[in-house]
Amino acid sequence: MYVILFYDIADRSLKEKDNSRRIRKAVEKYLPRVQYSVFEGEIRLSDLKKLKATLKKEVEQELDSIIIYEFDKPSYSRREVIGIDKNESLFS
Amino acid sequence: MYVILFYDIADRSLKEKDNSRRIRKAVEKYLPRVQYSVFEGEIRLSDLKKLKATLKKEVEQELDSIIIYEFDKPSYSRREVIGIDKNESLFS
Repeated sequence: MYVILFYDIADRSLKEKDNSRRIRKAVEKYLPRVQYSVFEGEIRLSDLKKLKATLKKEVEQELDSIIIYEFDKPSYSRREVIGIDKNESLFS
Repeated sequence: MYVILFYDIADRSLKEKDNSRRIRKAVEKYLPRVQYSVFEGEIRLSDLKKLKATLKKEVEQELDSIIIYEFDKPSYSRREVIGIDKNESLFS
């Protein structure tokens, strides 16, 4: 399946930054980062389940928000970035 | 057409916050907000063009990143939020 994952992590104290880094590492294990807060790519259903389990454990329920869109296949007709494109080379 | 827009706006000085608010207002004019930084919905092509023109004018090229996914129709099989869901009522 194909997934677009947006990552909206609140500002943290220094201690909590470790937690934020763990979340990021967990996502990076399975999905390529296409922007600072956006990950996107093919993922096996079993891996998606593992990733979600990790995220549910690590997120601060009152602070963070991760939104995952699941598609049967990549289906967008266009992807446009306005401002910084942190991964231009991937998409040019 | 159907659009998912993700909004990654850098921290700002007080003066620049006005600019950030203008960006947000511009997006809100056309698309419902589904999370703090995620907007999603049907939009006419002509409105999307207007919105992009405004965004290109207002974003700080070195700081901000807005990513727009365009679909012919809503095509995701699932949308899941982990953490805060700022618009639960919209999707339950």
